[in-house]
Amino acid sequence: MVKENLAGSAGNVNKAGKQTLLFPNRPRIIGRAAIVGPKEGEGPLKPYFKKVLKNDRYHEKTFERAEKKMMEEVIFDAIENAGLKTDEVDLLLSGDLLNQIITSSFAARRFNTSYVGLYGACSTMAESIALGAALVNAGYIETVACATGSHFSTAERQFRGPLELGNQIPPYGQRTVTGTACSILSGAAGHGVAVTGATFGKVTDYGISDVNNMGAAMAPAAMTTMQAHFKDMGTAPEDYDMIFTGDLGKLGSDILRDLMAEKKYQLGQRYSDCGALIFDSKQKTMQGGSGCGCCAVTLNTYILDKMESGEWKKVLFLATGALMSTVTSQQGESIPAVSHAIVLEA
Amino acid sequence: MVKENLAGSAGNVNKAGKQTLLFPNRPRIIGRAAIVGPKEGEGPLKPYFKKVLKNDRYHEKTFERAEKKMMEEVIFDAIENAGLKTDEVDLLLSGDLLNQIITSSFAARRFNTSYVGLYGACSTMAESIALGAALVNAGYIETVACATGSHFSTAERQFRGPLELGNQIPPYGQRTVTGTACSILSGAAGHGVAVTGATFGKVTDYGISDVNNMGAAMAPAAMTTMQAHFKDMGTAPEDYDMIFTGDLGKLGSDILRDLMAEKKYQLGQRYSDCGALIFDSKQKTMQGGSGCGCCAVTLNTYILDKMESGEWKKVLFLATGALMSTVTSQQGESIPAVSHAIVLEA
Repeated sequence: MVKENLAGSAGNVNKAGKQTLLFPNRPRIIGRAAIVGPKEGEGPLKPYFKKVLKNDRYHEKTFERAEKKMMEEVIFDAIENAGLKTDEVDLLLSGDLLNQIITSSFAARRFNTSYVGLYGACSTMAESIALGAALVNAGYIETVACATGSHFSTAERQFRGPLELGNQIPPYGQRTVTGTACSILSGAAGHGVAVTGATFGKVTDYGISDVNNMGAAMAPAAMTTMQAHFKDMGTAPEDYDMIFTGDLGKLGSDILRDLMAEKKYQLGQRYSDCGALIFDSKQKTMQGGSGCGCCAVTLNTYILDKMESGEWKKVLFLATGALMSTVTSQQGESIPAVSHAIVLEA
Repeated sequence: MVKENLAGSAGNVNKAGKQTLLFPNRPRIIGRAAIVGPKEGEGPLKPYFKKVLKNDRYHEKTFERAEKKMMEEVIFDAIENAGLKTDEVDLLLSGDLLNQIITSSFAARRFNTSYVGLYGACSTMAESIALGAALVNAGYIETVACATGSHFSTAERQFRGPLELGNQIPPYGQRTVTGTACSILSGAAGHGVAVTGATFGKVTDYGISDVNNMGAAMAPAAMTTMQAHFKDMGTAPEDYDMIFTGDLGKLGSDILRDLMAEKKYQLGQRYSDCGALIFDSKQKTMQGGSGCGCCAVTLNTYILDKMESGEWKKVLFLATGALMSTVTSQQGESIPAVSHAIVLEA
């Protein structure tokens, strides 16, 4: 099924084509957890969320501390869900949106576990699972916790303006999801959803410089990674029960459909976007949700629930990240984006 | 030689103990490059630097653009040094100090290569080589570029205050190195310095909250990782020709010596710190250099030159990162730190 596109990779069980890693030992997701804010808990995915905050300050003095607490807690929850003790996890792979990924690094203090910090903006859930599965599949580690998250109130004041300004979302904008999530991967034999491959994306930049229009900035990154994945694996959309992108939102996912159609791939009904799923139109979030937490909580609740119940057997999950900062925006730069993909098989 | 401390890892050629990864296929450093600023080019490592900027603005409108240009250029230089074309590199692993690692992500646009963004503050050089070597050793990829860097003028205004203020370094402070560096690792057989193992560190926090005293904040992280490495590998300082830490500076490296002596490890003359090496006392940088670029340029010039010339056969290289942000400092938080180690063998 796998086409070997590179002469050098012939016979290599861990590689397909140029960008895709294969995990024949099938590292499995043995535990998972998600925590969401009150607004997310009122959206369409409400039935799938087990832990919904009543207040997004979460009894803390600052929103940053609330986000950190949500991160610590979701990692503990996922480890517990896996039936493990915290010292049975070999490595924590984590990243978030805040400057110097403080949410991840400060939360990591609570765990007596090696820690590797990542920055992939909203692509972090796929980035961390791809790297974690690679390390587990090769036998470097046995168990890894892959975590990420975001918080509306910390992201808004870091990237846009003071919350007190009451900035409105433009019609093509999205709302940062308040939510953290963690997946525990294990190399031990057993049942469960396996991570069987991953495609690391290239950075694309189509010249979008409006930080409210991130769906449009990120859609080309999703396109190039999805296309590379299909090419490396010799597959097409029909080979997956579902394909999800991270947080392109309604507009961005429409753009992606069009871009893929130009490349002769019809995504059809089997494609959906976590940003478009997490809020409904009554919630006035315009194009939907965004932020590292958006696809992270959707994956670790809705998507994995459906896979474990047998509804979907094979899912392609692509998280997308917009890689700008306030400084680059102020200096007039456009927005580069990246997308990483993982293949999940029940 | 390697003690297997975990029952589960018995017989696993890619794992030693709890925190250490082994690379029996010996991924090699086949290309490398470094670019430094004018002040670094006047320091004790001057004979080892091939590319020294005359002006740290590097003909760009902003310091951030200069840093990005230095990053792009050093990756091109390293790929050329490896005798490769840019499209022969499978993956770029990179990170830096700026918010949302813009230096790395914006530079990545120039390369038609998969990109994985990292954040480990000044530990990034070891973090990227450790992950890169793991992916190459397992056959997921054949060639990886591992890059990082920092710039005095961008870091100073992001972390401390406007350059125009002319802030002075306190006696226990350090100066951010202006420099970028890149190592190209390959899984192909051949000669050269090999990366034979890596130890991912745990986050430590000893309660230091003074952002000028980073050597003291980071020394405990270097201690815990070094100790874990010795334990996992069944080695001691005497088993290495040299041991380098990243940027503890003079004070921080003295603290590390004391901490290790308490643990019954005498580092002696075989230990040195890149932050203490890169500037001399006449350059008025107090405790020395810091920043992602500090140990990155030292590794890719001085250390690897000495290894390739046969002076040192086995080197333990630990980069250390302080994981705070301006927001955590303003909110009164202490400074967590992490250190990752790699083993280099000629």
